[in-house]
Amino acid sequence: MNNITDIHYGPLPADSPYVKPFRFHYTQNGKQKSWDLLKVHDSVSIVIFNVTRRKLVFVKQFRPAVYHGIISGDGVEPGSIDMKKYPPEIAVTMELCAGIIDKPISIVEIAREEILEECGYDVPVDRIEQIIRYRSGVGTSGAEQTLFYTEVTDADKVSTAGGGVDDEIIDVVEYGIEEARQLTAKGTVITSPPSFLFGLMWFLANRAPKDA
Amino acid sequence: MNNITDIHYGPLPADSPYVKPFRFHYTQNGKQKSWDLLKVHDSVSIVIFNVTRRKLVFVKQFRPAVYHGIISGDGVEPGSIDMKKYPPEIAVTMELCAGIIDKPISIVEIAREEILEECGYDVPVDRIEQIIRYRSGVGTSGAEQTLFYTEVTDADKVSTAGGGVDDEIIDVVEYGIEEARQLTAKGTVITSPPSFLFGLMWFLANRAPKDA
Repeated sequence: MNNITDIHYGPLPADSPYVKPFRFHYTQNGKQKSWDLLKVHDSVSIVIFNVTRRKLVFVKQFRPAVYHGIISGDGVEPGSIDMKKYPPEIAVTMELCAGIIDKPISIVEIAREEILEECGYDVPVDRIEQIIRYRSGVGTSGAEQTLFYTEVTDADKVSTAGGGVDDEIIDVVEYGIEEARQLTAKGTVITSPPSFLFGLMWFLANRAPKDA
Repeated sequence: MNNITDIHYGPLPADSPYVKPFRFHYTQNGKQKSWDLLKVHDSVSIVIFNVTRRKLVFVKQFRPAVYHGIISGDGVEPGSIDMKKYPPEIAVTMELCAGIIDKPISIVEIAREEILEECGYDVPVDRIEQIIRYRSGVGTSGAEQTLFYTEVTDADKVSTAGGGVDDEIIDVVEYGIEEARQLTAKGTVITSPPSFLFGLMWFLANRAPKDA
C-alpha cells in the first residue's frame, strides 16, 4: 500500500490551509499567560461492525505525523533519514474510519460519506448511531470529535467503493472481536490514536455480542 | 479556579518553544505529496485509583486550545469575544493526571513526578504500572503517549502538594466508579480528550473492583 520514498521536511508556508498556528493570550488570577496552539477541523469517527462476519472494520494508512514523531523521538535530523532503518511501514496506523467536517452537511451525513468512501459500505444515516462527543488534542487544537457506531452487513458493501477518494491511500482491515480486544491488552505498543482505543473499548463494553 | 480575563490571539512567533510547525514532503506511488504538521513533546498519563476511598483521581484545568476550538467552531472572531456568552468555564477539561517528557529521566519517573505535583500523592515507581503506549494526534503531531496505572491510599497523600507547579492551576477531583462510568455513556458531550475516555474504560474493564 505504501511505496513511499523521498521523505524530507521544509518550513510551514504562511498560507497553509491545514495548520494555522497562533498564540493565545489571557490573564489568569492577574497574571498574563499565553499558549501556542493551532486551528484544526472538527471531525467524526465511526466504529463499524460487520454483523455478517462478526468483524470490526478499521482503516490503515501512512501517517506523516507519526513518521516524524518516531524519527524525531530518536533524534534523527530531517536531512539524513535512513529509510532502510526507518521504513514508512513504521508509521502506518490502524484507526477508526474517520473524516474532517469540511462541508455544510450534517455530521451524520459526513460519517455516512466516510463509511462509503473509506470502507465501501453504503449505510443510510438512520443506521448510524451517535455515541459520544469529546475534544481531541486538548493541548494544541481543541477540535471536537464525534464518535458514531454502525452495524453493516456484507449486503451493504459496494464493490467498487472504499480505499478513500482523490489521493487517499487507505487499506480496509477486519478484526475479530477477540483479536481486537488483544489490542487493548497491557503491554501493547501501537501507532493508533487514543480515539481508536476508546472506540474499540466502548464497542467491547457496550455493543459486542455477548456470546463473543 | 479560573478567574480568567482578557482573552485575545496573536500570530505565532517563529521561535515558539511549544509549537514547531513545518511541512513534510514525500513521494507515494510516484506522486509527490505533502503534509503540514507540528512537533510536540511525547507524554505520559496516569489513571490513579484511591483504594482507601474507592475513587478515581482526575485533574481539571482551563485549556486555551479547547476555548479556541469552541469559539472558532461558532465562528467568533478573536477580536470580538463576548466573555459573558463564552465564559472560561466552558473550556475547563477533565483529564487524567499527565505531563510531557521534557527531562532526561525514565518515563515512569516522569509519571511519578506528575502524580505528586498535580495530585499530591507520593508513590514509589514500583507501584506505577505501565499499561499501553499509543500515538496521540496522528493527523498533526504523532507524539507518543504512555498510559500508566497506580493505586494510591490516603496515607500516600502529601498535604502540601498537588495542584501543579509554577504557573499551573490544576484542580484535583475524585469520582466514584459508577459516577465515572456514566462519563462514557451514550449521549455524553464532554471537553475531555479521548485519552481520558480510553484510560477510564481501560480501568473499568481491567482494574475496577469486581464488587463495584
